[in-house]
Amino acid sequence: MKNQYFLEKAERLKPVLLEELKTVLGSSRPLKTGDEVIFDFGNHYVGYLSIDFLSTGHHQDAPLYFQIQFAEIRDELNQNPDSYNGWISKSWIQEEKIHVDVLPATVALPRRYAFRYVKIRILEVSSNYSVLIPQVSARCVSSVNDYALSAVRMKEEDALLDKISIRTLHNCMQEVFEDGPKRDRRLWLGDLRLQALANYQTYRNYSLVKRCLYLFAGSTLPDGKLASNIFITPEVECDFQSMFDYTLFFLNTLWDYYEETKDNETLSELEPVCEKQIELLRQAFNENHLLNPEKTDRIFVDWNLKLDPQAAGQAIYIYALKALQKMQDVLGKDNSVLKQEISEKTEAARTLFDETLGVFISGKEKQVSYASQIWMILAGVVTPAEGKTILDKLETIKDAEGMVSPYAYHHYIEALIQTGQKEKAYRCMHDYWDGMVQTGTDTFWELYNPKNPEESPYGGIVVHSFCHAWSCTPTYFLRKYYYSKEVNKTGFP
Amino acid sequence: MKNQYFLEKAERLKPVLLEELKTVLGSSRPLKTGDEVIFDFGNHYVGYLSIDFLSTGHHQDAPLYFQIQFAEIRDELNQNPDSYNGWISKSWIQEEKIHVDVLPATVALPRRYAFRYVKIRILEVSSNYSVLIPQVSARCVSSVNDYALSAVRMKEEDALLDKISIRTLHNCMQEVFEDGPKRDRRLWLGDLRLQALANYQTYRNYSLVKRCLYLFAGSTLPDGKLASNIFITPEVECDFQSMFDYTLFFLNTLWDYYEETKDNETLSELEPVCEKQIELLRQAFNENHLLNPEKTDRIFVDWNLKLDPQAAGQAIYIYALKALQKMQDVLGKDNSVLKQEISEKTEAARTLFDETLGVFISGKEKQVSYASQIWMILAGVVTPAEGKTILDKLETIKDAEGMVSPYAYHHYIEALIQTGQKEKAYRCMHDYWDGMVQTGTDTFWELYNPKNPEESPYGGIVVHSFCHAWSCTPTYFLRKYYYSKEVNKTGFP
Repeated sequence: MKNQYFLEKAERLKPVLLEELKTVLGSSRPLKTGDEVIFDFGNHYVGYLSIDFLSTGHHQDAPLYFQIQFAEIRDELNQNPDSYNGWISKSWIQEEKIHVDVLPATVALPRRYAFRYVKIRILEVSSNYSVLIPQVSARCVSSVNDYALSAVRMKEEDALLDKISIRTLHNCMQEVFEDGPKRDRRLWLGDLRLQALANYQTYRNYSLVKRCLYLFAGSTLPDGKLASNIFITPEVECDFQSMFDYTLFFLNTLWDYYEETKDNETLSELEPVCEKQIELLRQAFNENHLLNPEKTDRIFVDWNLKLDPQAAGQAIYIYALKALQKMQDVLGKDNSVLKQEISEKTEAARTLFDETLGVFISGKEKQVSYASQIWMILAGVVTPAEGKTILDKLETIKDAEGMVSPYAYHHYIEALIQTGQKEKAYRCMHDYWDGMVQTGTDTFWELYNPKNPEESPYGGIVVHSFCHAWSCTPTYFLRKYYYSKEVNKTGFP
Repeated sequence: MKNQYFLEKAERLKPVLLEELKTVLGSSRPLKTGDEVIFDFGNHYVGYLSIDFLSTGHHQDAPLYFQIQFAEIRDELNQNPDSYNGWISKSWIQEEKIHVDVLPATVALPRRYAFRYVKIRILEVSSNYSVLIPQVSARCVSSVNDYALSAVRMKEEDALLDKISIRTLHNCMQEVFEDGPKRDRRLWLGDLRLQALANYQTYRNYSLVKRCLYLFAGSTLPDGKLASNIFITPEVECDFQSMFDYTLFFLNTLWDYYEETKDNETLSELEPVCEKQIELLRQAFNENHLLNPEKTDRIFVDWNLKLDPQAAGQAIYIYALKALQKMQDVLGKDNSVLKQEISEKTEAARTLFDETLGVFISGKEKQVSYASQIWMILAGVVTPAEGKTILDKLETIKDAEGMVSPYAYHHYIEALIQTGQKEKAYRCMHDYWDGMVQTGTDTFWELYNPKNPEESPYGGIVVHSFCHAWSCTPTYFLRKYYYSKEVNKTGFP
C-alpha cells in the first residue's frame, strides 16, 4: 500500500551524496597474464572505481581481460570467489571480469562497491604487450561528512572504538541508512533504529532519519503493516515480509527522533501509523495478554535460530507501547486504554518469570536466554534493581542461550547500563568490539563471534558484510554515557 | 614512420558506419540460477547488443549475475570458454559476465561482437525472484549496405556461395577492411587485396580501399617498409612486423584500385611508396636474382608452416614488379631498369623449374608445393599453356605440399582460370566452399579443412574467426568470370 504524500515527503528529503576522490598510485611493473596487483586505499570506502591502464611493449593486438576483486578486509582477497557455495546469493560477491579492447584506457566501473582493498588480476594479455596500472581512483560517496563531527577527547582505546564505529556509520549513510554498503545495501527497521541513535551522537543528520521514517510509512503491506525493510530502486517498494519486532521498532525510532528534534509535524503525521501497527499486532496476544509467536510474523531478536522469541517479543511489544504512550502524551491524545494495555501486558510478562531459576523463561520449552532478560529490562517490566539481580543470576546458568550478533550485544550493553552497571557495560563493549579492532578492521562487522573470529557465518567471508550498521553503536555508548560533549569532562566510571 | 599528409587523407575517408537495428524476442519463461536461453538472430551480424531484463516474483533483493556468449556458428555455444587453452589470446573469446543491481534494466554492452547466436546463462539470482528477457536487440554496423548490390541471377548453388561471400565481406567492411570482425578486427594487406577484389564486383566502395591504401602508406616501419597490418585505435599505428609477400601486395592492391577507378591522383601519390618497397626488398635477392628467404621478413603465402616459401616469394616479387611497371607506364615514368629487373627475376625463377618432375621446386629441400606453381602462374613466369601442364602434373605428385587456407584456395582457383581451366576452377571452388555452406554457416571462415571439417586450428573454435575476409572471394569469381553483369547472360562454362 502506497501513501503518495509520505513518499513525496521522503523524496524531497533525499540527500545529495557528498563525493570525495581518493587515488592510489600503482607501480611501474609491467603486468602479464596471471599477474596480480593489490591497491590499498588505507581506509574503508564506498564508491565508484576507475582504473587507468596503459600498454607497454608492442601495440596491443588482443583485448586485455582482467578480474577485479573488492575487499572490505584483507582476508577476503585470499578467497576464491568461484569456490563460494553458501546460501547467500553469490551475486553479492564484489568481483568483475572485464575486457578492454583499446589501451590506454580509463575503465570506470558503473557499480558501487564497499572496499578498502582492490585486487586486479590480469586474466589475459597477448605475448606482444603488457599492461601498466599507474593509478586507481575512487569517487567515494556518503550523505555525511566528518566536518559535522564534534571532537571528543577520549582514552586511546575508546577513541579507536569511536572512530571505527563512526566510519561504519558514515559508509552506511547513503540515500538511506543502509544495513551494509556491501550487502544488502537496504533500509531495515532494526538497523535504522540503532543507526539513528549513533547518528544523534555524531553526525546529527536528522533529515535522513526523517526520510527513512516516511519511506517506511509510505510503502506498507496491503493491510497497512510496516515491512521489515524497504527497497528504494527502481522505485520505493517495501519487502513482502514483516518481522514482529522490526515493525514495532518503528515506534521507538519515531519517538527517539522526536526526542532529538521536537519535530511535532512528523510526530503528528506518523503517530497514526504507529497506532495502526499496534492494532494489527495486538491480535497475536491471547486472552491472558501473552504473546503467541505462532500467530504473528517472525520475531527476529538476534541471528540465532535456536532462540525462543516469546518473552523477548512480549517485552518488545511493551517497549513499543511505551513509546506510543509518550507520543500520545505529547500530542495530547487520550491514551487511558493504551496505559491499561501496557499494564496488562506487563503483568502478563511478569508471569514468565521463573521464581526458582530467578530469570525469565520463554516458550513451551521454558528456554532461558540472554535476549529474554535483556528485553524485559529494556521494556521496564522489571526495575533496574530486579534487572541487575536477573543479569547476575543469568551468568550462573550455563546453558542460557547466548548472543550472536553485534545487534544483540548492543541491547545487552544497554541493559547493563539501565541496571546501573556502567563499568561492566563498558568492559563488555570492549571485550566484544576490541576483538574486531585487533584484526585491523576499519569498520565493524555484520557478525562476529569472539569465540571463533575466523567463523564465516555464510559459508564464506566473500559475502560477509564487514561494514554493517548495527555494529556501529560503541560511539553511541561512549558519547552518550561515558564522555560528555564538553572536552575533558567525562562520565567515565 | 608517419606521413601526416597520407594519414589525414585516410582520416577524411573514414566512413560513417551504417546502422541497422535487429531485435529478437525472448520467451515468457522466468529464469532462475543455472537457466540458459539462446537467441538466434537468423544471420551473421556485427554490432552492439542490448538486453532487456525484467524481474518477476518478489522484489529483486540481490544483484542479477549473468554470463553472455556470442557465437558466429552454433557449435561455438557448446564450448566451455573456460576450458580453452590454445595459443590464441583467450581474451578474444566473445563472452562477458555481468552484474545488474537494479531490475528492470536494459543492459547495453559497450563492446562490439560478431555473432548470429547469443546465449545468456543466469549465473545467479536469489530465491526470491526470477528474470525475464523479453527481447535482445543489436545495433548492427557496417560501412556498406546491400542496396548497393547489383542483382545477378545465378544458379541456386552459386547464389548461395555468392550470398555467403557477400555477407562475409559486408561484415568485415567497417572503419577499415577488417580481416575478421571477431578476430583480429584488423587491417591486413593480404586480406585487403582479396577484399578489394570482391568489393569491386559487389559494393564498389572505392573510398574504403583508398582509405586503407593511405593508412598503410601513412604509417610504416622506420625504414619506410610497409607493415603487414595496421592498428587504427587508439591512433593509427602499424604493426612492428612485416611480411615479404604482404608488403608486395600493396603494389597489386594499388594497381587493382587504379584499374577500377582510374584515380590518377592516388596512383601518383602512392607509386613512390611502391618504388620504395621494391628498393628495400630487392636486397633479399642474390647475384643470380634468386630470392634468399633468410635475408628477408617472413614470407607468409599460406597458413602452412611446412611450406618452403622461396619459389612463391620469387614469383610474388615478380607479380608485384609487373604491377609497378603498369603504374609507371600510366604515369609516364621511365621504367626500363624495372623492365630489365622483371626479365632477370623471371629468368631466375625459371631456373627453379625441375625438368624431371615437370614442376617448380623450392628451397634447399627442393620442396614441391601447390603454392610454388600457383604463384609462378599468377606472376606470368610461365605461359598459360605451360601452367596447365604444370598443374596437371602437380596432381600426380602425391607428397606435394598442399593448401590449408581459403586464401590459398583463392589463388589456386585464380591460377586454374588463368590457365584456361574455368570449369575445373568452378568445381574446385564449389568443392572447397560448399563444405562450409553445408554446415549452415552464414559467412565463410578463416580456416577450413575439407578433410577434417571439425578441426579447430587454434585448439578451440571459440577463438576461430568464422567470418573472415580472405574467404569471401567466391563472389569475385562468380561475378567476374561466370556471370556477366547483365541478367541471363552468363559466362558459365
